[in-house]
Amino acid sequence: MRHTLQELAEHLNAGGADCQVVGDGGVEVSAVATLEDACAGQISFLANPKYEKMLATTQASAVVVGRRVDAPEGLNLLRVADPYAAITRLIVRMHGQRSHPQWGVSKAAVVSDAARIGARANIAPQVTIADDVVIGDDVTIYPGCFVGPGCRLGNSVVLFPNVVLYDGSILGDRVTIHAGTVVGNDGLGYAPVGEKWEKIPQIGYVEIGDDVEIGSNCSIDRATLGKTMIGSGTKFSNLIAIGHGAKIDRDCMFVAQVGLAGSVTVGRHVTMAGQAGVVGHVTIGDNVQVGAKSGVTNDVEAGTRVLGAPAMPIYEAKRVLAVMTHLPEMRDRLRQLEAEVAELRKRLTDDGRSR
Amino acid sequence: MRHTLQELAEHLNAGGADCQVVGDGGVEVSAVATLEDACAGQISFLANPKYEKMLATTQASAVVVGRRVDAPEGLNLLRVADPYAAITRLIVRMHGQRSHPQWGVSKAAVVSDAARIGARANIAPQVTIADDVVIGDDVTIYPGCFVGPGCRLGNSVVLFPNVVLYDGSILGDRVTIHAGTVVGNDGLGYAPVGEKWEKIPQIGYVEIGDDVEIGSNCSIDRATLGKTMIGSGTKFSNLIAIGHGAKIDRDCMFVAQVGLAGSVTVGRHVTMAGQAGVVGHVTIGDNVQVGAKSGVTNDVEAGTRVLGAPAMPIYEAKRVLAVMTHLPEMRDRLRQLEAEVAELRKRLTDDGRSR
Amino acid sequence: MRHTLQELAEHLNAGGADCQVVGDGGVEVSAVATLEDACAGQISFLANPKYEKMLATTQASAVVVGRRVDAPEGLNLLRVADPYAAITRLIVRMHGQRSHPQWGVSKAAVVSDAARIGARANIAPQVTIADDVVIGDDVTIYPGCFVGPGCRLGNSVVLFPNVVLYDGSILGDRVTIHAGTVVGNDGLGYAPVGEKWEKIPQIGYVEIGDDVEIGSNCSIDRATLGKTMIGSGTKFSNLIAIGHGAKIDRDCMFVAQVGLAGSVTVGRHVTMAGQAGVVGHVTIGDNVQVGAKSGVTNDVEAGTRVLGAPAMPIYEAKRVLAVMTHLPEMRDRLRQLEAEVAELRKRLTDDGRSR
Repeated sequence: MRHTLQELAEHLNAGGADCQVVGDGGVEVSAVATLEDACAGQISFLANPKYEKMLATTQASAVVVGRRVDAPEGLNLLRVADPYAAITRLIVRMHGQRSHPQWGVSKAAVVSDAARIGARANIAPQVTIADDVVIGDDVTIYPGCFVGPGCRLGNSVVLFPNVVLYDGSILGDRVTIHAGTVVGNDGLGYAPVGEKWEKIPQIGYVEIGDDVEIGSNCSIDRATLGKTMIGSGTKFSNLIAIGHGAKIDRDCMFVAQVGLAGSVTVGRHVTMAGQAGVVGHVTIGDNVQVGAKSGVTNDVEAGTRVLGAPAMPIYEAKRVLAVMTHLPEMRDRLRQLEAEVAELRKRLTDDGRSR
Repeated sequence: MRHTLQELAEHLNAGGADCQVVGDGGVEVSAVATLEDACAGQISFLANPKYEKMLATTQASAVVVGRRVDAPEGLNLLRVADPYAAITRLIVRMHGQRSHPQWGVSKAAVVSDAARIGARANIAPQVTIADDVVIGDDVTIYPGCFVGPGCRLGNSVVLFPNVVLYDGSILGDRVTIHAGTVVGNDGLGYAPVGEKWEKIPQIGYVEIGDDVEIGSNCSIDRATLGKTMIGSGTKFSNLIAIGHGAKIDRDCMFVAQVGLAGSVTVGRHVTMAGQAGVVGHVTIGDNVQVGAKSGVTNDVEAGTRVLGAPAMPIYEAKRVLAVMTHLPEMRDRLRQLEAEVAELRKRLTDDGRSR
Repeated sequence: MRHTLQELAEHLNAGGADCQVVGDGGVEVSAVATLEDACAGQISFLANPKYEKMLATTQASAVVVGRRVDAPEGLNLLRVADPYAAITRLIVRMHGQRSHPQWGVSKAAVVSDAARIGARANIAPQVTIADDVVIGDDVTIYPGCFVGPGCRLGNSVVLFPNVVLYDGSILGDRVTIHAGTVVGNDGLGYAPVGEKWEKIPQIGYVEIGDDVEIGSNCSIDRATLGKTMIGSGTKFSNLIAIGHGAKIDRDCMFVAQVGLAGSVTVGRHVTMAGQAGVVGHVTIGDNVQVGAKSGVTNDVEAGTRVLGAPAMPIYEAKRVLAVMTHLPEMRDRLRQLEAEVAELRKRLTDDGRSR
């Protein structure tokens, strides 16, 4: 479907964007593409200044840009305060959110008679739904998923292929879980008996709030006792490990390969960058930002940014790292100083003697 | 089912715990819970001193504590030397180990006629068991598992959903593998031919000893030749990568996201903390403890604790890390010293001239 | 099947290896094994000098060694310039590449009528192939795989169990993907709206070139717009995370647990060692080697080797690390110097006064 720039600007303005058309508002576009890939009939955007020079070469028919970006003469623009938010709105407008294959409730799914499933369910072949499961309305479950005994899923949940929910997992409304993710497996709970490890039954469960999206191939341990909790609105990338009994508050953003040990507490709206890790029983305050590859070993105060392993306040970490690259030079200077001081001492002593 | 404190104390004493009841031994409890979550009719425990202040606020009807813990007047206690071991025993007593859905051998499983399966098998729909597989007694295999040609599984093995065993994998008795874990895939075995990579057929296999438990979404390469080995009693958390031909001895404990490159040898009862890694062909001795996020690049002697990337003895690593945070200050002091020495040199030279 | 050393030498020579037989060319071997595991009737090899001492104890009937290796008297040898390449050729000769169970197109697979599948397809039970999929000839798809709407697969593709290809994924010829890997899931694409995260529809896809092999339990995000690209001949190990819109050129080698953030560009023939990570929007040149656990935060020039977090040229990183272990000693020396300088200053001042 085609849209004129003018129509798109009005759509953005309806959302409060205060969008200005620069150039020909009658130009038609039918898809969103990157500056590099876009061809005529497509609209692109510039959000990261790193790509600004591509404005000169893009084949896009129009580009969404910030208020103050210099763009080549003749390029049709939609000027907005926040190009990233605007292009998001345009992608939704022009392409929509993902649609799913329609299976109804497949006869080739194995659904317990003791499960309760809501209206308009879309359950693929090769899905297993165990006893005492309760599932809301408008749920989509792809092939190969396993929903264990006693799980409860809210409305509009989407489970992509091969997601596994162990017994007793609770998912809120509009939870999306990507392929291969496992929720509620036993954590590393053992009591040492000499050199042996005696298994502690893991009798807790996992609870996931509303509007949570979890990437692919993540592993979220059930709690030993009580629950492991992922708060509403939190988003995870892929290959993330969450230890037993961790409590993550709402609206957090975890990048790929993050790992939380058991019993970690994370406040709301916390960002964990890629490959960061947190040791057990630590508390991270609201709005904390943990840098990539950081290793958090102590509690972190709300609102701070930390980096490094062990993690420290980011300004401190950056100063340490900056000096670290000068370490070989510092050692040389230290040696030089030692030689000079020895020489001064000698001269002083010789002077003393010579007097 | 309800138990009096007195009964539970006797159960612990029967296991050799030397448990003392403080308070009312006739109080009844029916479940174990954390200090925070417990309500009346439940029993809790204190093992980590960090949570000691919760003794004042817990609603638990009783708490298992260590010998010397100060607890508020009126709180019913079970005093033991090792509260963690004791609560483990009580969880087993009161909740039992996990039970599994019962499928018998499902008609919707695809089981080769050339497979041999032991007594009381519990094999779910959507399981594939290939030719020449031999499976012991009392095995449970959840939906979506694949057991490749020629695999051998001992008695009482549990495979949670979507576990994949490549051809020729060998599992001992009482092995438990959590969902999504892959055993025996080809490792990164290629010979360089110019800039191309020529695949080396990976003709080895994986052998897993008795009583091993492996978390979810782990990947364990088959050996190029011979076997990759995971010793009896070893426990893995989630998202762990084991390279081809690695040999891990018995009773090890690997935390989430640990990675071992190919041909690593690990002794018995080794602990690898989260996100630690080991480069290829390294040998790690018995009882070694590798700290979180460490990168082991050289052999590690038995009984030592290492930390850091590259990993070094922990006391050394901690001293280095302690100094590292002072690096910016050290550089300032170095500059200051250089200025002072220059000034001293000048004074000494001036003095010399002035005499 | 048995082969004489002479036959194997001729096979290597036919491949241009210039192989010399030392000892008895009439000796017969039937399998390849490691120096440690080999028994009579097997051939082994020495490629890593670390294992040279095992030549004295191996039970192998013959060993492939380099030109200049000292071997015990009486051990039959095949001498070549490159023992690793030679043993690769012998493994292929004696053991062949992996064969697969034969399912034809299983009636227990769910294959859309709107999918087109090439000749000699080998599609297991419990596979789902969605609408508008196009699959080449000689493809093998193991149980539990999901091939989403509109995917295109070349000839001779192998998908091991439980691989998930999201809609629109494109795979070239001879692509092999190991169990549990997910291709084309949504990446972490959200626009911040206050503390909330608004999902950006991920309308791109993933394209994988010819002769790519990907390990188990990897996660490869689809692009937000356009494509995530993995170039021909590239090889991945396990548990690797590739962010949305990353572009990886041909013949790269990624070791386990590597993570690339979104929009990273990687040149051809780049090696990323285990647990290395790259932040978003960075460009890595051709033939770069990134060391284990490195964190790449800036563009890397072609042909360089980098190490550390943040990554720096390897010679620099190694100098820094070497000095780092001496930090505590350096601080002591700094203190010592400060004391000495203070004393010198005092003596000089006292001297001045005393004159």
